[in-house]
Amino acid sequence: MPELTIQTERKTQLVNVTAQLEELVASLEGFLVTLFVPHTTAGVLVQAAGDGATKVAGDIEAALEALVDEARPWAHLHEGDGNPWSHIRTALTASSVSIPLADGRLKLGPRQAVFLAEFDGPRERTVHVTVSR
Amino acid sequence: MPELTIQTERKTQLVNVTAQLEELVASLEGFLVTLFVPHTTAGVLVQAAGDGATKVAGDIEAALEALVDEARPWAHLHEGDGNPWSHIRTALTASSVSIPLADGRLKLGPRQAVFLAEFDGPRERTVHVTVSR
Amino acid sequence: MPELTIQTERKTQLVNVTAQLEELVASLEGFLVTLFVPHTTAGVLVQAAGDGATKVAGDIEAALEALVDEARPWAHLHEGDGNPWSHIRTALTASSVSIPLADGRLKLGPRQAVFLAEFDGPRERTVHVTVSR
Repeated sequence: MPELTIQTERKTQLVNVTAQLEELVASLEGFLVTLFVPHTTAGVLVQAAGDGATKVAGDIEAALEALVDEARPWAHLHEGDGNPWSHIRTALTASSVSIPLADGRLKLGPRQAVFLAEFDGPRERTVHVTVSR
Repeated sequence: MPELTIQTERKTQLVNVTAQLEELVASLEGFLVTLFVPHTTAGVLVQAAGDGATKVAGDIEAALEALVDEARPWAHLHEGDGNPWSHIRTALTASSVSIPLADGRLKLGPRQAVFLAEFDGPRERTVHVTVSR
Repeated sequence: MPELTIQTERKTQLVNVTAQLEELVASLEGFLVTLFVPHTTAGVLVQAAGDGATKVAGDIEAALEALVDEARPWAHLHEGDGNPWSHIRTALTASSVSIPLADGRLKLGPRQAVFLAEFDGPRERTVHVTVSR
C-alpha cells in the first residue's frame, strides 16, 4: 500500500505534505484518495497553503495548544503516559480525510494544502494512502 | 464531477444541504457518498435536523464561535490575513465526510442532516461529491 | 449493509469497538473500510488502545466534557431539547472515518483502536460499515 513518510521537527507542527502526495498519486488509478494516519498523537488536516500558509498553519498550531492547555489537569487518571494533551489535540483533528482525484491530480481548492498535524514530535510519521474507484 | 453550489448568508452558518444532496445522488450509482469541501474557511458536519434543526445548528454555530473567541490573540504571527478564527473553527469540523448510499438514498439516521459549515460568509461555496462502489 | 451494534453504559464514553469491527470485516472483500455513525450525539474516533487505553480514552472523555462545559449557556436558542453539549461534543469528533484494509485486517497502527464516542448515553448505538474496492 502506498504511503508517505514524514520527519517532523517540532512538538506541534502542521507539515505541508501536498507536493509529496501529488507525486505519489500521479501514477495511481482511481477517483478518490483517502489518507489514514496510523498514529494516536498525529492527525491530518486540509487547510490554507500559498503565501499565507505558514501563518495560518502557525495559528492553528497555537490554537490547538491553547484550547488544550497543558497547565490544565486533563490527565485526571494518568500515571505513566505523560502527554494526554497530544492525544486530545489529535482527537480534535482527523485520522482520515478523503480528497477527489481527477486525471491523477488532487482536486484541492486553490488555497488548500494537505497537512500532517504533529502533536508529539519530533518523530518519523507515516500516512497510508488508498485510492478508490 | 458532481458538486453542490451553496450561497451562504451569514458569517457563521450551518446550512442544511440534505435535500440538494439527496437530489444529486438519486441518479448516481454506488454505495458510498463522499463530500469534500474545497475551501479553507468552510467545512462539513452531519448533525441534527427535524423540528429542532435550527436550534441545534444555532447552538453549534455559537459554540464554535465561543470556543475560538475572536477576542483572543490567535493570530500570533499574522500580518495580512485577518480571519485566523475562520480557519481554526473550520479545522475543528471536517473537510470530508462519507455517508453510505442504498438504492439512491443516503443512509442517514432519522435525526441527521448534512450541513455545510460556513465560517467566513456570506460567500458562494462548492462541495465536491464522489460516489464509490 | 454490515453494521455494529453497541450498548453504551455511561453518558460520555469512548467504547473500544476494534475487536467487534475486526470480526465483521474479516469476511468482507475490499481495501478500505468506512465507518458511519447515524446518530447526532455520538461519533467515531481512532485513538490509543493497549495498556494505556482506559486512561487515554478517559482523558479524552474528560477533555471533551471540559471544552464544552455544561455550565456555559451554549443553548442560547433552546427551549425543548436539553442536551446541546452532546451535539457540540459530537461535532468536535467525526461522523465517519476510513481505515485501510489488507487481507481482511484493519491496517491500524500498533497503538490504535477504534472507538464509538458516546455523548448522550446510555443508549444502544449503531455504526454502518462499508467496504470499498
